[in-house]
Amino acid sequence: MKAEIITIGDEILIGQIVDTNAAYIAQRLNSAGFVVSERSSVGDRAEQIVRAIEQSMQRSDVVITTGGLGPTKDDITKTTLAKLFGGGMHVDRHVEEHVRTMLAARNIEFNELNRSQAMVPDSCEVLFNAHGTAPGMWFERDGKVVISLPGVPFEMRHLMEDEVLPRLKSRFALRQIVHRTMITSGIAESMLAARIAEWEDALPEHLHLAYLPSPNIVRLRLSAYEVDGEAVAQEIEERFRILEELIADHVVGYEGATVQEQVHRLLVESGKTLAVAESCTGGSIAAKFTAMAGASAYFLCGVTAYANEAKRDIIGVDASLIEQYGAVSEQVARAMAEGVRHISGADYAVATTGIAGPAGGTAEKPVGTVWFAVSSKRGTVAMMRNSGTDRGQIIDRATAYAIELLRDHIKGRN
Amino acid sequence: MKAEIITIGDEILIGQIVDTNAAYIAQRLNSAGFVVSERSSVGDRAEQIVRAIEQSMQRSDVVITTGGLGPTKDDITKTTLAKLFGGGMHVDRHVEEHVRTMLAARNIEFNELNRSQAMVPDSCEVLFNAHGTAPGMWFERDGKVVISLPGVPFEMRHLMEDEVLPRLKSRFALRQIVHRTMITSGIAESMLAARIAEWEDALPEHLHLAYLPSPNIVRLRLSAYEVDGEAVAQEIEERFRILEELIADHVVGYEGATVQEQVHRLLVESGKTLAVAESCTGGSIAAKFTAMAGASAYFLCGVTAYANEAKRDIIGVDASLIEQYGAVSEQVARAMAEGVRHISGADYAVATTGIAGPAGGTAEKPVGTVWFAVSSKRGTVAMMRNSGTDRGQIIDRATAYAIELLRDHIKGRN
Repeated sequence: MKAEIITIGDEILIGQIVDTNAAYIAQRLNSAGFVVSERSSVGDRAEQIVRAIEQSMQRSDVVITTGGLGPTKDDITKTTLAKLFGGGMHVDRHVEEHVRTMLAARNIEFNELNRSQAMVPDSCEVLFNAHGTAPGMWFERDGKVVISLPGVPFEMRHLMEDEVLPRLKSRFALRQIVHRTMITSGIAESMLAARIAEWEDALPEHLHLAYLPSPNIVRLRLSAYEVDGEAVAQEIEERFRILEELIADHVVGYEGATVQEQVHRLLVESGKTLAVAESCTGGSIAAKFTAMAGASAYFLCGVTAYANEAKRDIIGVDASLIEQYGAVSEQVARAMAEGVRHISGADYAVATTGIAGPAGGTAEKPVGTVWFAVSSKRGTVAMMRNSGTDRGQIIDRATAYAIELLRDHIKGRN
Repeated sequence: MKAEIITIGDEILIGQIVDTNAAYIAQRLNSAGFVVSERSSVGDRAEQIVRAIEQSMQRSDVVITTGGLGPTKDDITKTTLAKLFGGGMHVDRHVEEHVRTMLAARNIEFNELNRSQAMVPDSCEVLFNAHGTAPGMWFERDGKVVISLPGVPFEMRHLMEDEVLPRLKSRFALRQIVHRTMITSGIAESMLAARIAEWEDALPEHLHLAYLPSPNIVRLRLSAYEVDGEAVAQEIEERFRILEELIADHVVGYEGATVQEQVHRLLVESGKTLAVAESCTGGSIAAKFTAMAGASAYFLCGVTAYANEAKRDIIGVDASLIEQYGAVSEQVARAMAEGVRHISGADYAVATTGIAGPAGGTAEKPVGTVWFAVSSKRGTVAMMRNSGTDRGQIIDRATAYAIELLRDHIKGRN
């Protein structure tokens, strides 16, 4: 079964927002067994919306649109769909009641614009939006299904899970789509391709290999469309097992695997604890760990010690070290890791101190210079890495390098 | 002049990646004066790529594609374009030399796959990719331009800036497109629309208003297409000045303005300092401030006190408060703000303590319950807000609420 996604809104066409909705819907449709054959984005103009939907209906069985359902004048998706599928509009009492309740809870007055949100085309089945004021809509014509969802990502997601996917699964007889992605690091795409050429050539016709390169990481995805899911999933596992032996040093994991997840697992499994002392990464390392559910089992504390006094008074870094070597130095990085480990009683501690810029660089220590240290009862290790030239990039890379250094220390590699 | 963007790659259609390239290209084309009338994404299949390009060429003057230019077998954009525009392929010596140099610098062997990257269609003009191994390509037919760029965002961006935009600007006579976006907070979309209805109705035909709602923030964008840029920009400024008077309390700023930038400015201008004590937000508040260049002028320290012992030992929260009221309570939030202000000597301090979930909720304090406190020499204020149901959402919203509470305190509103 084929599906297409149309995201509606001038904000997408002018690049004011990144279209995350399309990616989410595509992923969920794939999991349900739909081949997403095309995606498009059009503006808030009736003739464009109609043309896009009609073209997609010719090519595919299901069309999902997002956006253009707000209460204001620039949003025209609902009236456009009402015209396209024929019939008038009416007030849906259930939706109106829900809008009133939602607004009352937030102390917002119910006005004419809100009443318009409860108007729905006669030609659609209403998909109840428990988390917002704009309902979803389900239209059918000639065996094709067109679904309209609000553009607010949170509301769209709930409607997909609670209303759209269950209906689609019962409406269509679907085969399965299987994707599995291996994450590799530290090997260039062309070298990787050369190294695994024999393995790649031996893949059967129905398994498609894709390379997805990004700095320091190459993802390898095997995909199979409209197959017997379980058997093919197992087949893919076996192929990847062979591949793991070929490139063992470079395998990080599968799917969205991240190094902080590796650390999270290692700490949870071993019952060890972690503390973080940050300067230039400014709380990002702590935020990466605490974003993961269950982090409270091992994450004791993080200190973002930006001021030298904070390094001294809170983490206990000897002021003379800062004076002698500078705040961005191996000595201070080590003292920060050891200090935060001491004040928190954590088993492991990681620390960063560097120059995120744009100001503060010198000839000897240019912007991007970052010192890292990890401390445990086995001792303290430190390293310096130049982490880029742009403030955001420096913070992101230094955060990644710190977590890698920590992972390697926990694994006994340093 | 009209332009369209086609992003190529199965990874986009299955939702494995979010298509940030399309947003970037759209933004840059808009700035140059091109109306982006449509965007689409197709898979790595020749017939789909050809159909999409031919359709776009019928509707628009310029078509930009990204993706499918890698050295591996799944990438077919280049050969497909060579067929579409006629003629054969040849090795570009300049590109080959560049690929060899790039690989040598990274200690990577030059192999057959790399040689294929130096092959280009006879029908194109090569756009030199200084930052990668896949060159861009520029095709023309019947006055229409088709440009193919690599999918790696970093490489695509450099090619857009250095090669594509200068060529487009000299190739086409372009009028201007003007967008200006006001950021508002603390007022619901429907209330805002009712409040500014008269202002909105008085807008001239050539200024288009769009509402972009997201939790707690509504962005108002005025756009004008293919106009005299300077005059219209000034006209838009005047319209927004009138609007500012109507909704003064709710204006955060323009374009990407954020509340943390407001706080940043207020602190830099007043020479006051800030400290942060976080529990459930886990370092995110500190990371928001330290991401801004110049934060070291006022940001003294942040403490992510996840463990109760860290709240007690590092920030000095009285253990009996935690015992009596629980870690998630008004009393502990106040003690955290006052404590971190005390240990750092900062003028202002903000604190959060809450339940980010998915575990840890109770009937009385469900997941999403977050207490906030701000402290200064004027005193300490606290508030509770339910910040959502999903861990990531709770962290994001609580971070935003905390920074707003801080801003209001600095402004003397609470």
